[in-house]
Amino acid sequence: MSSSTDQVLLLNTLLDNYLKVRALTNELCEPLQPEDFVVQPVVDVSPPKWHLAHTTWFFENFVLKPNMVDYKVFDKDYHFLFNSYYETEGERWIRSERGALSRPWVNEIMAYRSYVDEHMKHFLSAEEEVDDEVIEVLKIGLHHEQQHQELLVYDLKHILGINPLFPVYKSFQAEKHQPNLAENFLEVEEGVYTVGYQGNDFHFDNEKGVHKVFLHRYRIQDRLITNGEFMEFIEAGGYQDFNHWLMEGFEWVKRENIRAPFYWLKQGGAWKHYTLAGLEDINPDEPVSHVSFYEADAFAKWKGKRLPTEFEWEVACKLHEPEIPKSANFVDDRNFRPMPRQGKNTQFYGDVWEWTNSAYLAYPFYEKPEGALGEYNGKFMINTMVLRGGSYATSRNHIRPTYRNFFHPHLRWQFTGIRLAENF
Amino acid sequence: MSSSTDQVLLLNTLLDNYLKVRALTNELCEPLQPEDFVVQPVVDVSPPKWHLAHTTWFFENFVLKPNMVDYKVFDKDYHFLFNSYYETEGERWIRSERGALSRPWVNEIMAYRSYVDEHMKHFLSAEEEVDDEVIEVLKIGLHHEQQHQELLVYDLKHILGINPLFPVYKSFQAEKHQPNLAENFLEVEEGVYTVGYQGNDFHFDNEKGVHKVFLHRYRIQDRLITNGEFMEFIEAGGYQDFNHWLMEGFEWVKRENIRAPFYWLKQGGAWKHYTLAGLEDINPDEPVSHVSFYEADAFAKWKGKRLPTEFEWEVACKLHEPEIPKSANFVDDRNFRPMPRQGKNTQFYGDVWEWTNSAYLAYPFYEKPEGALGEYNGKFMINTMVLRGGSYATSRNHIRPTYRNFFHPHLRWQFTGIRLAENF
Amino acid sequence: MSSSTDQVLLLNTLLDNYLKVRALTNELCEPLQPEDFVVQPVVDVSPPKWHLAHTTWFFENFVLKPNMVDYKVFDKDYHFLFNSYYETEGERWIRSERGALSRPWVNEIMAYRSYVDEHMKHFLSAEEEVDDEVIEVLKIGLHHEQQHQELLVYDLKHILGINPLFPVYKSFQAEKHQPNLAENFLEVEEGVYTVGYQGNDFHFDNEKGVHKVFLHRYRIQDRLITNGEFMEFIEAGGYQDFNHWLMEGFEWVKRENIRAPFYWLKQGGAWKHYTLAGLEDINPDEPVSHVSFYEADAFAKWKGKRLPTEFEWEVACKLHEPEIPKSANFVDDRNFRPMPRQGKNTQFYGDVWEWTNSAYLAYPFYEKPEGALGEYNGKFMINTMVLRGGSYATSRNHIRPTYRNFFHPHLRWQFTGIRLAENF
Amino acid sequence: MSSSTDQVLLLNTLLDNYLKVRALTNELCEPLQPEDFVVQPVVDVSPPKWHLAHTTWFFENFVLKPNMVDYKVFDKDYHFLFNSYYETEGERWIRSERGALSRPWVNEIMAYRSYVDEHMKHFLSAEEEVDDEVIEVLKIGLHHEQQHQELLVYDLKHILGINPLFPVYKSFQAEKHQPNLAENFLEVEEGVYTVGYQGNDFHFDNEKGVHKVFLHRYRIQDRLITNGEFMEFIEAGGYQDFNHWLMEGFEWVKRENIRAPFYWLKQGGAWKHYTLAGLEDINPDEPVSHVSFYEADAFAKWKGKRLPTEFEWEVACKLHEPEIPKSANFVDDRNFRPMPRQGKNTQFYGDVWEWTNSAYLAYPFYEKPEGALGEYNGKFMINTMVLRGGSYATSRNHIRPTYRNFFHPHLRWQFTGIRLAENF
Repeated sequence: MSSSTDQVLLLNTLLDNYLKVRALTNELCEPLQPEDFVVQPVVDVSPPKWHLAHTTWFFENFVLKPNMVDYKVFDKDYHFLFNSYYETEGERWIRSERGALSRPWVNEIMAYRSYVDEHMKHFLSAEEEVDDEVIEVLKIGLHHEQQHQELLVYDLKHILGINPLFPVYKSFQAEKHQPNLAENFLEVEEGVYTVGYQGNDFHFDNEKGVHKVFLHRYRIQDRLITNGEFMEFIEAGGYQDFNHWLMEGFEWVKRENIRAPFYWLKQGGAWKHYTLAGLEDINPDEPVSHVSFYEADAFAKWKGKRLPTEFEWEVACKLHEPEIPKSANFVDDRNFRPMPRQGKNTQFYGDVWEWTNSAYLAYPFYEKPEGALGEYNGKFMINTMVLRGGSYATSRNHIRPTYRNFFHPHLRWQFTGIRLAENF
Repeated sequence: MSSSTDQVLLLNTLLDNYLKVRALTNELCEPLQPEDFVVQPVVDVSPPKWHLAHTTWFFENFVLKPNMVDYKVFDKDYHFLFNSYYETEGERWIRSERGALSRPWVNEIMAYRSYVDEHMKHFLSAEEEVDDEVIEVLKIGLHHEQQHQELLVYDLKHILGINPLFPVYKSFQAEKHQPNLAENFLEVEEGVYTVGYQGNDFHFDNEKGVHKVFLHRYRIQDRLITNGEFMEFIEAGGYQDFNHWLMEGFEWVKRENIRAPFYWLKQGGAWKHYTLAGLEDINPDEPVSHVSFYEADAFAKWKGKRLPTEFEWEVACKLHEPEIPKSANFVDDRNFRPMPRQGKNTQFYGDVWEWTNSAYLAYPFYEKPEGALGEYNGKFMINTMVLRGGSYATSRNHIRPTYRNFFHPHLRWQFTGIRLAENF
Repeated sequence: MSSSTDQVLLLNTLLDNYLKVRALTNELCEPLQPEDFVVQPVVDVSPPKWHLAHTTWFFENFVLKPNMVDYKVFDKDYHFLFNSYYETEGERWIRSERGALSRPWVNEIMAYRSYVDEHMKHFLSAEEEVDDEVIEVLKIGLHHEQQHQELLVYDLKHILGINPLFPVYKSFQAEKHQPNLAENFLEVEEGVYTVGYQGNDFHFDNEKGVHKVFLHRYRIQDRLITNGEFMEFIEAGGYQDFNHWLMEGFEWVKRENIRAPFYWLKQGGAWKHYTLAGLEDINPDEPVSHVSFYEADAFAKWKGKRLPTEFEWEVACKLHEPEIPKSANFVDDRNFRPMPRQGKNTQFYGDVWEWTNSAYLAYPFYEKPEGALGEYNGKFMINTMVLRGGSYATSRNHIRPTYRNFFHPHLRWQFTGIRLAENF
Repeated sequence: MSSSTDQVLLLNTLLDNYLKVRALTNELCEPLQPEDFVVQPVVDVSPPKWHLAHTTWFFENFVLKPNMVDYKVFDKDYHFLFNSYYETEGERWIRSERGALSRPWVNEIMAYRSYVDEHMKHFLSAEEEVDDEVIEVLKIGLHHEQQHQELLVYDLKHILGINPLFPVYKSFQAEKHQPNLAENFLEVEEGVYTVGYQGNDFHFDNEKGVHKVFLHRYRIQDRLITNGEFMEFIEAGGYQDFNHWLMEGFEWVKRENIRAPFYWLKQGGAWKHYTLAGLEDINPDEPVSHVSFYEADAFAKWKGKRLPTEFEWEVACKLHEPEIPKSANFVDDRNFRPMPRQGKNTQFYGDVWEWTNSAYLAYPFYEKPEGALGEYNGKFMINTMVLRGGSYATSRNHIRPTYRNFFHPHLRWQFTGIRLAENF
């Protein structure tokens, strides 16, 4: 940091971001009552109060405790309770039992959030120099909290959506525009392309290792697959025909008795689905959501196409979508559903994450960071597939063309959809 | 019912009992916050709010709905949510997933309780005749709620006790008296004895079928085994020596890595245990609690003795303990722990339930009641063992010498202890 | 043993029995090829070669090794491989993985049998005194091998019966007589009866503890329930109606999709079953076999009756059936199926074991033997139910009125059937 | 096929190959007795007799049945029993229960092999034209049987290796040469490389889709990691330090209590391992074998390097290893162990398969074949990692630089090893 004036500016901006991000987490919880903060219906879901505490622990543990003079931890037991998976940080409460903990209560966790926020304000407003590395960790903390905001929305949807009462989280805003569902495939010429993060702004370690890939000529869809298109797959017996499926996918379908995307149910012969506005008729124009990789892949094969690779996605996105569009739904819009494609926009960001046919693996020049943050991304690089593009629970300032999300292929409580591609 | 005056009196008494029982359930929940009402750490534990709703559903479904003119159910979804195991009553939410439901919220369930209580008041205060059978069901409902009060205390202890924060539910009252731990064995002569419920007051179907049994001469301990005595078993390597154990018990010990009663843990070389007053030093004079049948049986064998049968227990109890003593702890005392034996009292009631070496099976003249209540007791008569005597979470007016409680032999989150016997 | 002449006679008789029992085990395996000796389709089934070796190990380990001077074990690894569940005897190969062992080959195990048989001949023919205790162990070994002959027949039936080729083990002999299916209930007056083994011949520890029981007046069926009667239960929807079932039984029915006794299958609308003579039409007059306790109990309740207790069975058996009848099928007959009741015989022995409504628990004066043999019976006294009477895989000289067999209530690969009782 | 003379020649060659391949399968089974052909200790292992029958079924079902006039299947039940995973071919016996089948006996399966072989001889010796597509399927059948020969060796090693008797399958041949363990890294320049199968000989569908990839400059080891090097990892606490591990790998290590490669055990402080020659001291110069992807990856990270991608492997192999070397061990050598690197050879083929850091996914121009054979490779393209190079159980004429093998990352009963790479 060259001059202290610059740093003051930087710290002011950081503090401003910090307060906004932290406030959004709280805002997302406003429709909830204490009971809703506690349950963990399946192992992949964390109780909302756990997200509230864990994101706070991240700042306390990685920013305040090592860097703020005389900082006293809010509660010595919280380190054990709210460490997620950092082996570097020692023993922790087992993930699958997060829903077994009624204490600390939500108001205690809210007090924890306030306590850490107060100390973060002091820390960032102090006259003293803040080390570049600390600023880097702080930025990670903000993006980390944005990731947990997204998980929080997945998780609270799961908690509410499996409840036979189908409670409303927040009513939808009225649709503004006429959707444009014309199907169009963007063509990309073969060649050597550069992928991975190249700028100077925030990015995760797994996007680094900018490198070249050779891509053969391909076409990629300019919008997402809709509910209506997916219904055709269901009606054509897609879930019953092994020909479209990976073997483990078809075993999953049979074992779990899968017949439609998650949250879909048939009432009186008509498909409905649970949304954050309650149980709704399915809008056929909306992008399909809550499909696993297996379902996305089977749908693509049924269509005679395939899913794009993550690099096909990234290159097409950079060529055709220079900025994050206003037309998609992001968490900033507080409109908790995917939006049908509007006008002539290509639909690369927001709405729903898109499964790619790329396994989540290290880039050629990938370097694992030192210390606990080395556990942030690298250790998950097996048995998971890459998703790109963000969803209606992602922050607009969190997504970028090189952003690599990843999940196991059978998971579908996240907001996941489908885009098709093919060589030609 | 011979005369209407008698019935008014009876109904008044019933209403009085009803209000007392219902009030106690609410009182037991007072130290809890909404989060504590939701979790289900293991399948055997139900969330406290589920107990609150299920006991209410019992009165709504079996008393009000069939008998009160114009009664409207509080919420049509509650039948599905709060039916426990009555196949007669149709489909229901799966037991193992009770902890996955954040809704209805606690305040909604409290409103449900009030709604049903108001209607019960009207129902019992009306000028109209109430059928004898209805009164019988109502009495079952009260004893049913007392049973759930007991489960509620087990369950909230489990919820709090596995939490690393070891929260206090309620502080203990100071000990009043000097314990008398002198060991004494009561002798009973051989002969034909009559067992099973013979009076005219409330009792469950499984106690009926009064019948005769032949008992050989036996001795039975006049007090419960203490923590101190059980520590000797631990220190003698009791958990490691297969000779004392049933095979399935020893497999359970190894598989679950059992080394002490539930809630016991070693800190700095000393045994402590979680109690409803928080983490405490173990009082060696207190009756041992939270042992499974396997542990009780192994302890007895290590002592060169055995557990009594349920009939040995019942006959000895009737001979030596004509009334429910004041000296034991019951839920009425709000002193949530077992009490060391006081003075010359025999310790047959309250404090902790006692495992017997009798399988829970039908008595010779057992008759399953008609309808849903036929599912109350009979269908559990396999793979479970009988316990006798009540615990510090039992109501004084709920226990009697013929009362048969039953649990699977590996369970120990209940308040269970040990009494020894032998032939001579 | 008073005189050495007596002992010589006794040893001669013992040797004779030994050779007969050992020969029968080998004979039972004659229809098998090496492959049939190896598999373990479910954990409850042991590979036939394991039975051959384990019964041999019993004599080697408990008779020869401790008592025969200079005895050298056949193979030092066999102790680990063929100890079943004797903790006293140390570590052993895990039961559930018995079918993972292709070695030792069958011919090696046959060599092991010959080796031990040769040494047993020498041991029993020697001029030297044999200690009474050793003779007792030897007798246990013979009865132990008879029990394993029975298990061997269960297990080879399972191995062959789940094979889609439905291979024949041995063709049936032609029926000789007209069955008599007239239903009759034997009446027993109330009173104090003495139960448990009282003679001087061989018996197991779990029959000892002769004691008195009080029985209320009851009626007990004089023959077994037939396939035809059980078909009526099936056709009446018995497997679908929860009213007849214990809760754990009904859960078992639903979880395992049970619709008929084990080995029954419907082909072209008609019930067939796998028998040791291959896939056969079901003979409605034959006693029903391969039912679990749950099914036996549900059938009895559907009939408005109940299963007898083990003491009701024993007392009625002693009153009405002084000798082991010739008319039933035992393993001695090599006719591997249950026989319809013949003439006026009561049907208490052979054909199929009969589930009682008694849990397998210790008798009042039960004493666990010292050493490894203390693990023979006592440690299984939990979660199992008593069966009485023997089956077509039992030896005639092995069964007696006081004999207590026991299995978990869900098991039904054994040869198990139903007799009804009621109070009156 | 241009002329019938050419076809006669081709068919003669094919028949010759057919007979050689079939004979080798039988030869590999010679050291086994019937019992060894039956067991399935874990789900991934198939009983040897299943391999014998399934490979035969492949020829019967895909070559003879559809193409040979008047062909009669050997046994109509075998289609159900020996179809592996072809949904196109209908219902089949469940994979996890292959070890539950004692029938058909080995001699019956050998008769099946002879029967099909006789018919194949007639089919290939007939005067009639054979369609090109049939020839293609026949070639697949031969390579399919070579793959099953390899699985057969894995599986029989597993069956023998978990047996506490540690039986010898075949003694090793004496080492001929001095190993050369000098470590050397081959350098490859960055550029666009062509990968995938390009010739006219046999290859699998998953190698097709020849395409270009961009590779950054890298170094790749010219030999395999040795047992000695892997021991250093163990001694350095590699299995205990989470830093080297993928999260799922570390969970696997803890859950399965992994401390060394499969078949390794410590006796008296020294590492031994089960080999097909019995329990042996570990030769530190031999390539390490029986490591999972997790272990290979952790070892590479501990070394500060990484595993190569499948394309890095393929390009380096093509550049440095133009022919299948004589110096490695293949199944042709009947020397059932990996060989230390000899002389100046690079060690790319044979000995042990090498884990790459490439997920097994479709190539850009991948096309799934029509019909049942479309299920051969494509449906496994998820959650598996690519291995390259063949092993000592591979046939020399079966391997090639473009050959893609694949397994789940936790499996290690196969013959799998490690080669390192890095960018520079």
